[in-house]
Amino acid sequence: MLDCAARRFLRRVAAQTGIPLLDDRSATSPATLTLTCRRSGDLLKLDTVEESYTLRVTGQSATLDAPTTVGVLRGMETFLQMIELGPSGFRVPAATVADAPRFPWRGLMLDVSRHFMPLPVLRRNIDAMAAAKFNVLHLHLSDDQGFRIESKVFPKLHQMGSDGQFYTQDQMRGLIAYARDRGLRIVPEFDVPGHTTAWFAGHPELASQPGPYKIERGVGVFDPAIDPTREESYAFLERLFTEMAGLFPDPYFHIGGDEVNGKDWNRSERIQKFIAARGLKNNQDLEAWFSSRMVEIVTKQQKIAVGWDEILQPGLPTGAVIQSWRGAKSLAEAARQGHHVLLSSGYYLDLMLPASTHYAADPQSGEAAALKPAEAARILGGEACMWTEWASPENLDMRLWPRAAAIAERLWSPAQGRDVNRFYDRLDAFSRHLERAGSTHRVAPRRMRERLAGGVDAPALNTLADVVEPVKNYRRGSLQVYRSDLPLNRLVDSVPPESDSARRFSADVDRALAAGAQAPEWASIRARLTAWRDNHTALKPLIARSGLLTEIGPVSEALEEISAIALQAVEYHTAKAKPPAGWAALQAGKLANPGYAPLKPDIFVYCVELQKRHNSTDAGARKICTIPAAAGGVLIAVAPPIRKLVETTKK
Amino acid sequence: MLDCAARRFLRRVAAQTGIPLLDDRSATSPATLTLTCRRSGDLLKLDTVEESYTLRVTGQSATLDAPTTVGVLRGMETFLQMIELGPSGFRVPAATVADAPRFPWRGLMLDVSRHFMPLPVLRRNIDAMAAAKFNVLHLHLSDDQGFRIESKVFPKLHQMGSDGQFYTQDQMRGLIAYARDRGLRIVPEFDVPGHTTAWFAGHPELASQPGPYKIERGVGVFDPAIDPTREESYAFLERLFTEMAGLFPDPYFHIGGDEVNGKDWNRSERIQKFIAARGLKNNQDLEAWFSSRMVEIVTKQQKIAVGWDEILQPGLPTGAVIQSWRGAKSLAEAARQGHHVLLSSGYYLDLMLPASTHYAADPQSGEAAALKPAEAARILGGEACMWTEWASPENLDMRLWPRAAAIAERLWSPAQGRDVNRFYDRLDAFSRHLERAGSTHRVAPRRMRERLAGGVDAPALNTLADVVEPVKNYRRGSLQVYRSDLPLNRLVDSVPPESDSARRFSADVDRALAAGAQAPEWASIRARLTAWRDNHTALKPLIARSGLLTEIGPVSEALEEISAIALQAVEYHTAKAKPPAGWAALQAGKLANPGYAPLKPDIFVYCVELQKRHNSTDAGARKICTIPAAAGGVLIAVAPPIRKLVETTKK
Repeated sequence: MLDCAARRFLRRVAAQTGIPLLDDRSATSPATLTLTCRRSGDLLKLDTVEESYTLRVTGQSATLDAPTTVGVLRGMETFLQMIELGPSGFRVPAATVADAPRFPWRGLMLDVSRHFMPLPVLRRNIDAMAAAKFNVLHLHLSDDQGFRIESKVFPKLHQMGSDGQFYTQDQMRGLIAYARDRGLRIVPEFDVPGHTTAWFAGHPELASQPGPYKIERGVGVFDPAIDPTREESYAFLERLFTEMAGLFPDPYFHIGGDEVNGKDWNRSERIQKFIAARGLKNNQDLEAWFSSRMVEIVTKQQKIAVGWDEILQPGLPTGAVIQSWRGAKSLAEAARQGHHVLLSSGYYLDLMLPASTHYAADPQSGEAAALKPAEAARILGGEACMWTEWASPENLDMRLWPRAAAIAERLWSPAQGRDVNRFYDRLDAFSRHLERAGSTHRVAPRRMRERLAGGVDAPALNTLADVVEPVKNYRRGSLQVYRSDLPLNRLVDSVPPESDSARRFSADVDRALAAGAQAPEWASIRARLTAWRDNHTALKPLIARSGLLTEIGPVSEALEEISAIALQAVEYHTAKAKPPAGWAALQAGKLANPGYAPLKPDIFVYCVELQKRHNSTDAGARKICTIPAAAGGVLIAVAPPIRKLVETTKK
Repeated sequence: MLDCAARRFLRRVAAQTGIPLLDDRSATSPATLTLTCRRSGDLLKLDTVEESYTLRVTGQSATLDAPTTVGVLRGMETFLQMIELGPSGFRVPAATVADAPRFPWRGLMLDVSRHFMPLPVLRRNIDAMAAAKFNVLHLHLSDDQGFRIESKVFPKLHQMGSDGQFYTQDQMRGLIAYARDRGLRIVPEFDVPGHTTAWFAGHPELASQPGPYKIERGVGVFDPAIDPTREESYAFLERLFTEMAGLFPDPYFHIGGDEVNGKDWNRSERIQKFIAARGLKNNQDLEAWFSSRMVEIVTKQQKIAVGWDEILQPGLPTGAVIQSWRGAKSLAEAARQGHHVLLSSGYYLDLMLPASTHYAADPQSGEAAALKPAEAARILGGEACMWTEWASPENLDMRLWPRAAAIAERLWSPAQGRDVNRFYDRLDAFSRHLERAGSTHRVAPRRMRERLAGGVDAPALNTLADVVEPVKNYRRGSLQVYRSDLPLNRLVDSVPPESDSARRFSADVDRALAAGAQAPEWASIRARLTAWRDNHTALKPLIARSGLLTEIGPVSEALEEISAIALQAVEYHTAKAKPPAGWAALQAGKLANPGYAPLKPDIFVYCVELQKRHNSTDAGARKICTIPAAAGGVLIAVAPPIRKLVETTKK
């Protein structure tokens, strides 16, 4: 492994610097970087694998020492990040880095069911994950919209449940090896008993209702669920899990268990009779019973079961790992009950929240901060989650990166790191590094916008795109009727979740307001506002020609309008003048218009629809989601600092 | 084949539009595009393969008819180019296209010896070639700097002659299949008897001098050559060519034959005795004799030999195909003597000439225009040539594209097409299309410049880069000592051979000068000149920080200086004023400085060094190459229109 890793490392140094480096073992000149490690690390042994390393760079030499090969991999990633260009060429600053991860489980859950992600997409993102020192790729392999892995035992699962879009077992073995070479485990998830419509396309006999079933094209929580009262269901699942436990070498096996609405169980007389006969109280009890059976099956395969936090019910064997997604409270509860736990609440990348939100979420904060040491020790780490209703192979990378790196850093680095400004500086540099590692997150927007513009350069489209963001949380699903085969080729699909331009503008506005009329920032604030105000005139003809841009006409016009208001506000600030009576109130009213105002981070957590549906116990989730409807599914991200400019004019 | 092609086509339509298209054979809705073809076309039978197709798009339906599967592939490429975005979405304009190629051999010669090109690089460029309707990839597999294909018969060839950078036979079979699926043949070249230093690293016994030899790191025409007097040489070559003829299914087999300087033959008493004993006159006769033996060996394998035009000597069997690179004259001569011929003179992409130069070169122009019909019928077509002394896997695509498309169009489309302005409009759109097909030529410059800037956005670097071009012809080799392992990470490596900004600026200057003081172009000319003049101030701090940019300081300063001169000239033009006496002459003098002035196309053909070396018979080649030394290996491409602005001020 180390040999391959060293060759890959050489290739990456060469690519990064443009200096060809031949793999020349016969060279007599002393090595530039000496690698040493004491043993090969077995990634799959979570208890004993060591990922620590020490990197020493002096004026004379560089050494990378690690107890295991895995540590060497991590240290190589650090070394690659340290290469910089100076006045006399490339260099690595002299430094000693003694580094080790805070948590042993640093994962990314990727949903390949809602949108199938071809192998090259997975490979390039595994490369990016390795650069960010993630160590687990959790593949959500089945859901209502698709069963994505070949089963030789039950071939109808993938044949009838995937539209032909699945990984063969050979491909998956290749991918597992690819990930292992880069220090990543692959954890498979088969989500049961709900989220199983695609299974029933080929195997309706598993379902609680007679069917027939076809692959689900919509999105949400659907009624179909496995019939937990028939022993044939368990026999089927045991055969399938036995097959899959053989395919996936990882000691962990994810059984899902989330979002069972119970409706199809309610509709079945047999199931309701079964509940009564067993002395169970309700569907929830039935689900708990089902989960325990699943854990049993997984345990028989010498694997450790992982499930979403719904499986945490009385009677669940403590050997099962709980992945907490509905809030930090369930994480603490599970840890207190003796379960190993993973945090995913706060790490949902598909909610389109800023990187700082994810950076702030810590597995040991909130209720978890009050855990006793023995309980806290059960926190294995966490996982970023990427559900792909609104992500395609084309824009997945920009939905993941660079924000996922915030979570990777939170899970690797000491808990103390909190400075958001310095974090964003690092993130900016790391985003470029991720592109070198293979991610397409920076090139995809440009290509998608070229398509939107009908194949011409359209600086005005970029100007607009740079200051808008997709609507947050699950709001987009309520703006249009979803189908899994909808084209994701709109402006909203081409803009990053977080606008760098808006973040910088906002910071400049804060600085200018703090410093007063003479602040040096006013000139560039004015210049930006002028460009935004004048942009609609340049963009209008393009909008008229492109059917894909029609919907953003109002957004473009709105940017013109609010930038003009802001320019007036800037005049009042710089002239230290008082606006006419009522001016600020009038403008603030306009700025409250739909589409102008992204929510603040503290109520960015869940929509009320989601809260109702899941009966979440988190305080954050109870706050009502009031994101206004936004044209084209986008929000103007510079609206909040503009509102601030207006509201702070002299009264 | 058609089935795979149809699936690939669907994927590309989906990628181009962002509309997911499932491969649904069971769909009952009528097909959007109906494909028909009468038989599968065998690409390898040059005489009978038909590439024609008819594409009919109406308001109701689209049909693509072709006699062969190869024609269907070509028609699909046209259809993909026709997809456009209109006010109500994507569409294909109603039209009937009845299309067929002018020449059956439309190739690209790629040198994988000077710089090894990994398989992904070849694959993505095969995709781009297919988009441009090329049908031959000619791989220059061996040269002084590397022997790039695995030989099982003589493994020391690739083991000792490639630095570990070679294609295995399995990989090559895969690549041949990949190319065939896209309608491209792969023609292998083993260049003998010169350009063989890398062979001798493992097999010094083949050489004319005792050696020892090692892989050549320099570039040029070297002395080592196969010993043509020993029968063992022929036995070796026959065994090797037999092996390679089995690996490469193409009926054509390229034996090179170029640039033998004869020095090592002169130094060998045995060889000179052999010449005398055989009644040969000189080395050239010996070379002719060697070529005939090579043709014989190739013919025994049921293959047709191809060679560079040096092999055209009395006694060469007419079955051999001549690839003319030293000028159109040799093409006509070979055709008259009964050889099939390929034009490559005028198609050397590594000379960094503008696309229009290549577009102007026609296989039936010059002396070839005077050929009798039976002779002219021997012109099979032509090949773009890409020698890779100065191209790496990172920037190869931008050295090839979009300029190679000019040659593809010249070889496919009717000879009448000559309008350069309309050609550039098409090329601009096609360049974007090539990126969608997989070429990295548009993204590579951005990434390379980010590296040059040390990982930050550097608009000022882009402003400079957009108006410079690499020095032309083989001038770069005389500006620095070449080694094949030189880093190709300088600004010159990141700029396209042809500056679009300069071309557009030049056209605007011409229009403005023609229209006079009131021309609407003056405003934007002034704006561009102002940006260029002010750019150095912005770029200076970056240059100070980046060791890779030091060398372009003078270029950046020069742009400032000449833009200031041009702005003065613009003032005189728009004010209809006369500059002070001597002003124009003074400025024109400055503008004659090294680095400001790319040569005009008509003397862009060859450097005098090259001409001397090859004893070329072309008039163009005799012109003396007087390109001035340029800082950083780049020329300021806006210097010529700026000079025009100065020279046209009132006298």
